[in-house]
Amino acid sequence: MRIAHLNLVVWLLLWPWCAWSGLPENAQGTGEHAEQWQPDPMHEYWDPGTYHRPEAERVEGVFKGEACLECHAVVTPGIVKEWKESRHAQTEKIVLCPACHGEDHQKLTFPTPKSCGDCHPERLAQVEEEKKYGFPSHALAMERAVDSKHFADKPKAEVAACLQCHSVATKCDSCHTRHRFDPAEARRPEACLTCHSGPPHPDDVAYFSSAHGQRYLKEGTNWAWNKSLRKGNYEIPTCAYCHMKDGNHQVADKAVWKFGIREVNPKTAENEIKRKRWSETCADCHPPETAEGFFKALDDERHGAWQQLYGVERLLKGLRGDGLLRPSAQERPPYPMDWMARLLPRERIGFYEGQASAFYNVGAIERNYFDLWYFSNLGAYKGMAHGAQEMSNRYHKRMDSEVLAITRAAEQLRNSTDTSKGRIDLKPLWLEGEYTRFNRDHN
Amino acid sequence: MRIAHLNLVVWLLLWPWCAWSGLPENAQGTGEHAEQWQPDPMHEYWDPGTYHRPEAERVEGVFKGEACLECHAVVTPGIVKEWKESRHAQTEKIVLCPACHGEDHQKLTFPTPKSCGDCHPERLAQVEEEKKYGFPSHALAMERAVDSKHFADKPKAEVAACLQCHSVATKCDSCHTRHRFDPAEARRPEACLTCHSGPPHPDDVAYFSSAHGQRYLKEGTNWAWNKSLRKGNYEIPTCAYCHMKDGNHQVADKAVWKFGIREVNPKTAENEIKRKRWSETCADCHPPETAEGFFKALDDERHGAWQQLYGVERLLKGLRGDGLLRPSAQERPPYPMDWMARLLPRERIGFYEGQASAFYNVGAIERNYFDLWYFSNLGAYKGMAHGAQEMSNRYHKRMDSEVLAITRAAEQLRNSTDTSKGRIDLKPLWLEGEYTRFNRDHN
Amino acid sequence: MRIAHLNLVVWLLLWPWCAWSGLPENAQGTGEHAEQWQPDPMHEYWDPGTYHRPEAERVEGVFKGEACLECHAVVTPGIVKEWKESRHAQTEKIVLCPACHGEDHQKLTFPTPKSCGDCHPERLAQVEEEKKYGFPSHALAMERAVDSKHFADKPKAEVAACLQCHSVATKCDSCHTRHRFDPAEARRPEACLTCHSGPPHPDDVAYFSSAHGQRYLKEGTNWAWNKSLRKGNYEIPTCAYCHMKDGNHQVADKAVWKFGIREVNPKTAENEIKRKRWSETCADCHPPETAEGFFKALDDERHGAWQQLYGVERLLKGLRGDGLLRPSAQERPPYPMDWMARLLPRERIGFYEGQASAFYNVGAIERNYFDLWYFSNLGAYKGMAHGAQEMSNRYHKRMDSEVLAITRAAEQLRNSTDTSKGRIDLKPLWLEGEYTRFNRDHN
Repeated sequence: MRIAHLNLVVWLLLWPWCAWSGLPENAQGTGEHAEQWQPDPMHEYWDPGTYHRPEAERVEGVFKGEACLECHAVVTPGIVKEWKESRHAQTEKIVLCPACHGEDHQKLTFPTPKSCGDCHPERLAQVEEEKKYGFPSHALAMERAVDSKHFADKPKAEVAACLQCHSVATKCDSCHTRHRFDPAEARRPEACLTCHSGPPHPDDVAYFSSAHGQRYLKEGTNWAWNKSLRKGNYEIPTCAYCHMKDGNHQVADKAVWKFGIREVNPKTAENEIKRKRWSETCADCHPPETAEGFFKALDDERHGAWQQLYGVERLLKGLRGDGLLRPSAQERPPYPMDWMARLLPRERIGFYEGQASAFYNVGAIERNYFDLWYFSNLGAYKGMAHGAQEMSNRYHKRMDSEVLAITRAAEQLRNSTDTSKGRIDLKPLWLEGEYTRFNRDHN
Repeated sequence: MRIAHLNLVVWLLLWPWCAWSGLPENAQGTGEHAEQWQPDPMHEYWDPGTYHRPEAERVEGVFKGEACLECHAVVTPGIVKEWKESRHAQTEKIVLCPACHGEDHQKLTFPTPKSCGDCHPERLAQVEEEKKYGFPSHALAMERAVDSKHFADKPKAEVAACLQCHSVATKCDSCHTRHRFDPAEARRPEACLTCHSGPPHPDDVAYFSSAHGQRYLKEGTNWAWNKSLRKGNYEIPTCAYCHMKDGNHQVADKAVWKFGIREVNPKTAENEIKRKRWSETCADCHPPETAEGFFKALDDERHGAWQQLYGVERLLKGLRGDGLLRPSAQERPPYPMDWMARLLPRERIGFYEGQASAFYNVGAIERNYFDLWYFSNLGAYKGMAHGAQEMSNRYHKRMDSEVLAITRAAEQLRNSTDTSKGRIDLKPLWLEGEYTRFNRDHN
Repeated sequence: MRIAHLNLVVWLLLWPWCAWSGLPENAQGTGEHAEQWQPDPMHEYWDPGTYHRPEAERVEGVFKGEACLECHAVVTPGIVKEWKESRHAQTEKIVLCPACHGEDHQKLTFPTPKSCGDCHPERLAQVEEEKKYGFPSHALAMERAVDSKHFADKPKAEVAACLQCHSVATKCDSCHTRHRFDPAEARRPEACLTCHSGPPHPDDVAYFSSAHGQRYLKEGTNWAWNKSLRKGNYEIPTCAYCHMKDGNHQVADKAVWKFGIREVNPKTAENEIKRKRWSETCADCHPPETAEGFFKALDDERHGAWQQLYGVERLLKGLRGDGLLRPSAQERPPYPMDWMARLLPRERIGFYEGQASAFYNVGAIERNYFDLWYFSNLGAYKGMAHGAQEMSNRYHKRMDSEVLAITRAAEQLRNSTDTSKGRIDLKPLWLEGEYTRFNRDHN
């Protein structure tokens, strides 16, 4: 073992915060809208292929794997222990630290899907195949969450939070965590639910509220997780059992309603093919009639939900037509890069008019519609889609309340129209004020 | 083994969605209000005794149990494996598939509580005994959720969701799931919490927030669940340990506050007897003074909560008296079958005036009262009743906020009374409009 | 074994609720504000050192430990079984029942931190050491939740709920539950999360939403919990691993942002020292750059959140300046013991003006600010601080909605100012009415 400066190790342990080695202050974003945002230090972890900059480390030298292990067994024993339990340590052709991180401690690298794919090409190909199904998908998760038009309009704190999960596209240890990278871990629902939780994708609640999830909670600890995700290996399905059948790392080919964010025709030829794939999956345990009954219940639930949403959209468009929505398009900044919208501002209501995140800089009634659509509506969908009807019910109750509240707020807006009383000047929230500036400055 | 058409099995796997064999399109509801609603396909699973219609299956023939197993070990291996682990497969008098489903594949049946009761008469008698305690109870759960006056007024999506759990009255595998039917499974809290979750019955949060539930989460995996629910067998109670003491399938005889949906006098002779039963249950681990302290804390909490609720009810009745609640009784449809209400419409506020679900077609302030009463209030109750005081606190904070919001909304309604400004026409939501029509058409 | 009256034991089991032996009806609170509140029966369990009054028990006699065990193995077998599994039963110098409860069944005592400290002086000293770091801390949790100025203004139901958890200061079995008192139990996250859950401290959601927590959920059942909380013993951290490193029972010396309830300068000399302690803890598994990246993300998130909060505070102060906040200071009761405030009433907005719980008797817009600050803001903080960025995101979305709602409500207040329409008389909620009286009477 060769360590250039042993005292540096001691210093590393005692003063580890002194030697900041992250992204430079003036780092730039990448992609089409690169000028609109700036990466923060965590970006080099969330998207190492794009943002990691190897830097002078405190420890100098070139190390083969055994030397790495010897030192790190003391410095960071947990990850060494995990690696020893991993298949990487137990195959004939042992995979040591430098295979992923390089040998030069001054030029350490972080693995990317591409570098993992050097040894696991089939898995990488499956992930890449998702792209032909469009978004939402794992493969496109990162580029949609960073270099996307509407993300430039979101408060920085929310964008930063999005990245941790959306990094599923740019590194592989979201599901198989460091340094054991265990398929058995990734088969368990928690591997998915770290990210698939919270609005607008409360899949954790949906799964655990279902009879499937409850059986998992009761017995899952004792299941044989080393078994592959094939028919007969598991008595109760998990996320991966259904969505990554037979271990397929492409999760997009059965999505009929996708994330539930827009109404679809569930009976198109393409969706019939997807539904057939579902039916075959359910048939591992259930007669086809049961699956059909659930599909129909889901279609009905979705249709009903969208009738409610359309009603509220009409209400808002009516208010807009009468000039009652504030801030109006003129008061609100367009996307920073949207010169057409700057010249010809127009109101955009709802997902269909193309400005999902205009909801971050709007009046209360429009934001309430956003919450209704994006949180309650999607919760209702997720519940019904996973056989958690109580959960769906719960979110429908919330939708009912929210529809009533928006309706009443609309009535108040109309009733107070022709008053001549001075309005409070709310500009600070909008076109030029500090809220807008704060978000923009930090993007 | 005799399979009529082997190619049908293949076809079944490849095209399972083609052969829909559920309820006929024109199926009728049952019971007093049968004309007001129509069962959907899932009804034959939720209430097989009433709605299951044996139909021509793709596989023809009459099969003894061994033949069923041979084929289904390939077609649906999970349920066969579960059955083999069940006591049904391990008793001297083995219980094979036809015992529950019949032998003729063209006339398959689903078991009901009554058919399960043929072999388990004591358990069935215990469930039936609940009926003398009235609602809420497992035994009456289904008929109150389907053929009930106020359910005809609820949006279809919510009624559909209610049924999955309320089917506890009409089939036995809600708690002992197919096809292992394991008492050990039903003893675990998740068996109950699949249904007992979400508003208005967040028993999952209540239990897991309590010290009891946290001990279960820490250690429950290793407990001896094959042991019966008797004193000394468990160090920490679960739902069933307290509510189904000694395995008694009658869960209604200790309910003092019932679901918390109305104020009761906790000191009636009947409630003193129920409280005594609780005290005896708590005494398996705690001195009686501890139980008494908790009872008193619960009574106090309930009394305080009802004072808040009564205050808001008075506020709403005041608004009604002054004609400020919209939609008024005249604008809102009565229950479809309520001819008296159609002739003499009257406002009904709160549970006490008898129209729990009028809250689905009311103004925002009345709906807010419903949320306050049915969701926040019951959450506060459930928390306190299960020793989860932090949870109770949390819901009381919500109640505080909601009382303030309703009070302020009432003030606004009064302030804007005598304005002559045109109101927005909100009829579409109410008496004749599409919201009403949509719900009614789908019931 | 000597039991004075065996029939009393039988009677105890049959009529346990008859012999109430709690605090006397006229028991007094303690401390500076003792006259403002009255303990309820549960106080003798939550704070036995102060409120437990040994009383005549139904069983008379003086018992050595073996006699206690013999009888209680029948009466309350669970706790005897737990004790037998405890280290108390397995050390050379066995710790029998009387060591904690005394020998005289007429004068039973409950252990306090001080009495536990007789055998565990190092642990007691660690807890006591917290006091030098101020509040929040375990050591000061109880006195701040009972004998505190602003608690006298809270509804009784909420104060009662606070005590169960705040009793962590006044008894030791909050984390090591009776009667096994197992360090292994206290190392598991649920030991902490029984209390650290719900607003304003949703640490349960924060931990379980993080990658750390999800690994625990997947594998924790099989970890070697008998191992101490030292580097290398656990692959994944739990609450106690980081916050009680090496088993230190002092949990306050790393708190930079404390509970997140006010903005701090994270770069003071003191906070740099605390941050160094964190960095060293993270370094058990992560390179220091990763920890630094997370610290920076947290500082940024906090700064952004406080900008939003300050904006709303300014809005409210503007309304107050123009006399638009109701109830005004004159309409609202001061703290009952605050004679200065009674003579010179003044509005207090937000934490900084010193009346945290004035939010229990205020107008809706002030309460909404409280919810924004104390619930959503702290949820956003807890998420970011625990690496649960999705959770932080979720709460930031809630903050956005709430800021908009408050802003709109402020606009409405201004618009309706100069109307001459009669306001609804809302006095009952405030200075003299029943809501105020109810809360005060029950404190």
